[in-house]
Amino acid sequence: MASHSSSTLFTSPSSFNLFSSHRLNPSPSYFTLHFPGPVKRPHFDLRCSVSIEKEVPETERPFTFLRDSDGDDTQSSSSSSVRARFETMIRAAQDKVCEAIEAVEGGPKFKEDVWSRPGGGGGISRVLQDGNVWEKAGVNVSVVYGVMPPEAYRAAKAATSEQKPGPVPFFAAGISSVLHPKNPFAPTLHFNYRYFETDAPKDVPGAPRQWWFGGGTDFTPAYIFEEDVKHFHSVQKQACDKFDPSFYPRFKKWCDDYFYIKHRDERRGLGGIFFDDLNDYDQEMLLSFATECASSVIPAYIPIVEKRKDTPFNEQHKAWQQLRRGRYVEFNLVYDRGTTFGLKTGGRIESILVSLPLSARWEYDNVKFLINVIIHIKKLNHDSFQL
Amino acid sequence: MASHSSSTLFTSPSSFNLFSSHRLNPSPSYFTLHFPGPVKRPHFDLRCSVSIEKEVPETERPFTFLRDSDGDDTQSSSSSSVRARFETMIRAAQDKVCEAIEAVEGGPKFKEDVWSRPGGGGGISRVLQDGNVWEKAGVNVSVVYGVMPPEAYRAAKAATSEQKPGPVPFFAAGISSVLHPKNPFAPTLHFNYRYFETDAPKDVPGAPRQWWFGGGTDFTPAYIFEEDVKHFHSVQKQACDKFDPSFYPRFKKWCDDYFYIKHRDERRGLGGIFFDDLNDYDQEMLLSFATECASSVIPAYIPIVEKRKDTPFNEQHKAWQQLRRGRYVEFNLVYDRGTTFGLKTGGRIESILVSLPLSARWEYDNVKFLINVIIHIKKLNHDSFQL
Repeated sequence: MASHSSSTLFTSPSSFNLFSSHRLNPSPSYFTLHFPGPVKRPHFDLRCSVSIEKEVPETERPFTFLRDSDGDDTQSSSSSSVRARFETMIRAAQDKVCEAIEAVEGGPKFKEDVWSRPGGGGGISRVLQDGNVWEKAGVNVSVVYGVMPPEAYRAAKAATSEQKPGPVPFFAAGISSVLHPKNPFAPTLHFNYRYFETDAPKDVPGAPRQWWFGGGTDFTPAYIFEEDVKHFHSVQKQACDKFDPSFYPRFKKWCDDYFYIKHRDERRGLGGIFFDDLNDYDQEMLLSFATECASSVIPAYIPIVEKRKDTPFNEQHKAWQQLRRGRYVEFNLVYDRGTTFGLKTGGRIESILVSLPLSARWEYDNVKFLINVIIHIKKLNHDSFQL
Repeated sequence: MASHSSSTLFTSPSSFNLFSSHRLNPSPSYFTLHFPGPVKRPHFDLRCSVSIEKEVPETERPFTFLRDSDGDDTQSSSSSSVRARFETMIRAAQDKVCEAIEAVEGGPKFKEDVWSRPGGGGGISRVLQDGNVWEKAGVNVSVVYGVMPPEAYRAAKAATSEQKPGPVPFFAAGISSVLHPKNPFAPTLHFNYRYFETDAPKDVPGAPRQWWFGGGTDFTPAYIFEEDVKHFHSVQKQACDKFDPSFYPRFKKWCDDYFYIKHRDERRGLGGIFFDDLNDYDQEMLLSFATECASSVIPAYIPIVEKRKDTPFNEQHKAWQQLRRGRYVEFNLVYDRGTTFGLKTGGRIESILVSLPLSARWEYDNVKFLINVIIHIKKLNHDSFQL
């Protein structure tokens, strides 16, 4: 389904949005933006010591990106099999979402880039650009083996004061996607599901191994159709309710809080669900929950696009969509932790920024006549939207 | 020349790019982006205690934005007259640049917003959008009286250990402008000149009053015409050479270092001059130098636009310009200190983001066929460009 090509311009692919707001984010002592004092510094003084190996392009998709030992249940702990099953899940989800998008496109196909890392890990980026229905659709999976500073690892506290904890190896796997349609009446979708594990720190044999799940699905229309909002949120709620009645209200609020453009006092979109650091439930249950959420992307989103993709629109509709896309750019470049983390740690730029729309627009003060739409968005999103 | 209008959507106008990379930037203890540790935080924990009064819209441009005492030479120190003369200079520069742009436009006029602050200070924003020649042209001046934490003020060290320095009142005035033409062969221009003064801290009568100048003029073409590059830089060099032969090479390098998109390893444009924290020369000399630099904007830039504004172009040229504008957005939202500072301290968003182009574009990996252009930019800018 996807054509293969390798990237010649950029040689360092890495995860796309994989690190969105989970606790891997290093502590301030390792990742600090300093504003200059008396000493002249032409740039931010950026120190980050989360290290990830350099990648190499691949011509074929490997069966797995896991290290050999991780796939073998007899050798390692039960969480290895969660690693393997999570990778299988996200790769299947990538295939299914891409197939669903190509089916709606009716011709245009995803372009695929595959890479791996010598010590294990790798990823598959798929982008469909300038299609019939989507302006830009990116669906990426990646698997990362890395090392993080002990200060970034909460379990390091288990060490006694005599034991100085060393760097903590970690495993992370995730799927991340942003889908920007052409038609101004069809919404943009973002989803991201990830699983994270630390190995026990080498110098601290007693420190517990940690794992957690994170992710979410949220949508950002330029024009609001209440039936679309209800459909989208209903599917999210159904997925959540299969596991815990507290999930949907809790993760809906988390989503609203996270996708917030502070300098505009606007939500990025109309929400959905978002969660992070989830480990206070049964691991198998959470794996099933993440699987259910990823499976819900197609029924939550594709019917809306099918319904709106051929709605007639004029230049004014398109201009408003472009202004809304400007907001998307502002959120992603200024606030989104996955994006800012990726940019500042030398990730694969083309993969990280595939989340940006194909085009966007900023007009000075020309939003006045659209104030009612903004109010509508805020009202729906802040206060009154309930299923 | 400019029509008057007030902003109803946004009620808090503030300086646009006024704070670009000068040392007012607060110390890390006051302005720190924390990445989350174990505690869940949906957003960056942002603390900033540089305080600036709320603004009110005005229907008329006042004669001056200075406090009464600042305009009176007999009452205050000689630096007050520098305040007054700098304000006069930037307001004259704003008038002249806007007149020059309107002359080239041949019809379209700037839209003006004026605001003031009850305790002194204010500003004039002028934006010309969707003109004949410029897609978006913003030319703003502002005057700010504020208070900064003592830790952000290097002179606070003059206090003895028994004296705890209090907040430091400051004065800042600046002109800031970004001009994005429509024609892909005409370059984008940015310039910004500012003057900064601290009052002596109230609790530390012996602490010295500080002042400094900052600013620069740089240009960003989508297509490179070596004659344009040479013309632009020649005018900058001439302005610098009138004052000190070390200025041009030093400020050219400073410009290259500052306007650098780290995650792309690309310069934003083809440079110009940039300086900050300048106070190790005679104050009168630096006031003259800033005046000369501001006066050089028109001869450096307008002839290039006159020459390129009617060059025929096709969709491919426009697409490349849009991609280059995407880089401009990336720099401004991710790296530019004036922009990021403004966004995070509650400045007037429409004024701060007037620096963004009217439209921009991000294509996945489609820059490959343009690699020669990128190489060309890098070569010109990193190594080989010399007058």
